[in-house]
Amino acid sequence: MKRGDEGLAFMLRYENVAWYEDGKVRILDRRIYPVRAEYVVCRKHEEVAQAIADMVTQSAGPYTAAAMGMALAAYEVMKSGRADVEEYMEHAAYTLSHARPTTVNAMVKITDGAMTIVREKVRAGETGQKLVDAMQEYAFHYINNNYLKYCKVGSYLADQIPKNGTVMTICFAETVIGTALRECRNRGNEIKMICAETRPYFQGARLTASVACDMGFDVTVVSDNMPGYAMKEKKVDVFTSAADVITMDGYVVNKVGTFQMALMANYWGIPYYATGEPNEAHKTIDTVRIEERDPDQVLEAMGTRVTMPGVKGYYPAFDITPPKLCDGVVTDKGIFAPLNLNAYFNQIK
Amino acid sequence: MKRGDEGLAFMLRYENVAWYEDGKVRILDRRIYPVRAEYVVCRKHEEVAQAIADMVTQSAGPYTAAAMGMALAAYEVMKSGRADVEEYMEHAAYTLSHARPTTVNAMVKITDGAMTIVREKVRAGETGQKLVDAMQEYAFHYINNNYLKYCKVGSYLADQIPKNGTVMTICFAETVIGTALRECRNRGNEIKMICAETRPYFQGARLTASVACDMGFDVTVVSDNMPGYAMKEKKVDVFTSAADVITMDGYVVNKVGTFQMALMANYWGIPYYATGEPNEAHKTIDTVRIEERDPDQVLEAMGTRVTMPGVKGYYPAFDITPPKLCDGVVTDKGIFAPLNLNAYFNQIK
Repeated sequence: MKRGDEGLAFMLRYENVAWYEDGKVRILDRRIYPVRAEYVVCRKHEEVAQAIADMVTQSAGPYTAAAMGMALAAYEVMKSGRADVEEYMEHAAYTLSHARPTTVNAMVKITDGAMTIVREKVRAGETGQKLVDAMQEYAFHYINNNYLKYCKVGSYLADQIPKNGTVMTICFAETVIGTALRECRNRGNEIKMICAETRPYFQGARLTASVACDMGFDVTVVSDNMPGYAMKEKKVDVFTSAADVITMDGYVVNKVGTFQMALMANYWGIPYYATGEPNEAHKTIDTVRIEERDPDQVLEAMGTRVTMPGVKGYYPAFDITPPKLCDGVVTDKGIFAPLNLNAYFNQIK
Repeated sequence: MKRGDEGLAFMLRYENVAWYEDGKVRILDRRIYPVRAEYVVCRKHEEVAQAIADMVTQSAGPYTAAAMGMALAAYEVMKSGRADVEEYMEHAAYTLSHARPTTVNAMVKITDGAMTIVREKVRAGETGQKLVDAMQEYAFHYINNNYLKYCKVGSYLADQIPKNGTVMTICFAETVIGTALRECRNRGNEIKMICAETRPYFQGARLTASVACDMGFDVTVVSDNMPGYAMKEKKVDVFTSAADVITMDGYVVNKVGTFQMALMANYWGIPYYATGEPNEAHKTIDTVRIEERDPDQVLEAMGTRVTMPGVKGYYPAFDITPPKLCDGVVTDKGIFAPLNLNAYFNQIK
């Protein structure tokens, strides 16, 4: 089978995202990569959910982890010989999909898909190792189909990048960045990358910059107070980000800082493209709850405290970019105007 | 004599800014405060210049350090018994004032003031210990007059903060923050502070937040990707920053990130006030050279590297906020419109 991760950077290879094998899910710890390449090994699906909550992996990583977690849950229920397989799996599906509040809707799609298979298999009496195998296969197809789909997104994004142009990003757009870079390379387009470091976890510096560097591109990191100046000085051609949620009314919910950068891009006349797909479960932005994370994490950097005891922190994980500030939603079906996202679903395929 | 630092936080006390005594200049190392309160001790004026270049102290700190450095130079030339005192002092003045490219003009004003005294003293034959004393007195008066002047700036700024309002800042506005907070406290205005951490040195988290906390205020730190969201969510009333240079045509040159925050404040309809005074040596923004610092500093946080070897960094120390995005320049003579800064100099005193 054609694997969608060929030619991508180390951390985008399936085995280094989240991987079920022999009763364990192994997840590359993105909180410390690339300083060290270490894995969190989960022996229970609850540990997978906890790893997702703790941001061992993020961006698209948690979705694969959740799918792999379902394979682990099937292994658990086989081993323990529990009678009510379906109930156990349903409970696991809930635990995995609700690991982080902001992504519940997208997560439920994955665990629902797994549960459809679970019910079929249970009905056919195919539990035990057969269910484990079916879940493992489901998880593999999930990530592989996802990558193949994101090859298209990456390709549409690559279309928007001028020859030898400069692209600015925030956080880690995961597969999209990998596939867009691979596409640029295949087209002989030697683009430059500027990555905002993305506090407090530095995903831009640690992950995106490392992926681009690993793939041989010219890449520069700026801290999160610099994009406004750097966009102008470094002649940025395109700003792009992933999206945790794209609402049907055109709002982009993504890593906090995206809104600021979209606003600056707008000021300098630089196009901003969000990648992903519209989420039908969110008709309007009012339905999105912005997750707040442990405020203490803002008060430290790479494990060192940065201020006086008594000072408080505030850590909204995401922010909201209004449709006015977004020049296009880049999907697997092409690029759509943020105020016309119904077209994504109505399009003749 | 009335000292302008009464009731201010620890790090704003004169002895903890930069202080000449007995052949040494002692400078609080702001790169590590408040994790530890340590001082860099300089025994030669070149070491003072190096400390300024290395950002041991920043914001208004270097100006005091330069003045204290002139006292140290006087001590050096006394000790070495050099004949040509004036030439030695002139050389020291150049070294100290040129420690950082962006602030040369403002620095030269201070060293020029010192040189006027040097020439008088030399002419009167008052070299040796007398010259050291005169330089020490000059430095003390420099910082004390500066503080007394910034009491006025802090007071005008306090006028703009609504009762129990929320103020957002970037980097460390030094005396202005201290005096504005003292003024608010004296008026019974229990304001809240939100400080952008200000990478790569975290001056907002380490210095501004610590000063506000030290003085008993409610203070919250956000990372530099959060102000855009936090301004709205936390109902910020005023955004304010210091300014390394305010050009006569109304541009504010300040710590990188200021421009972004001014743009976001403008988006949300929040007033932005720059504090300081217009710089007549910079008639237009074209005369300002933006300093770029060691790019490797962006690639680490509190001493820990954040990305893969091979990734580059970019570290513009300052950015430029256009007059359109600034609602007022708060000075010791009141608040001026950025496009009408000649009024600062033409005003009847």
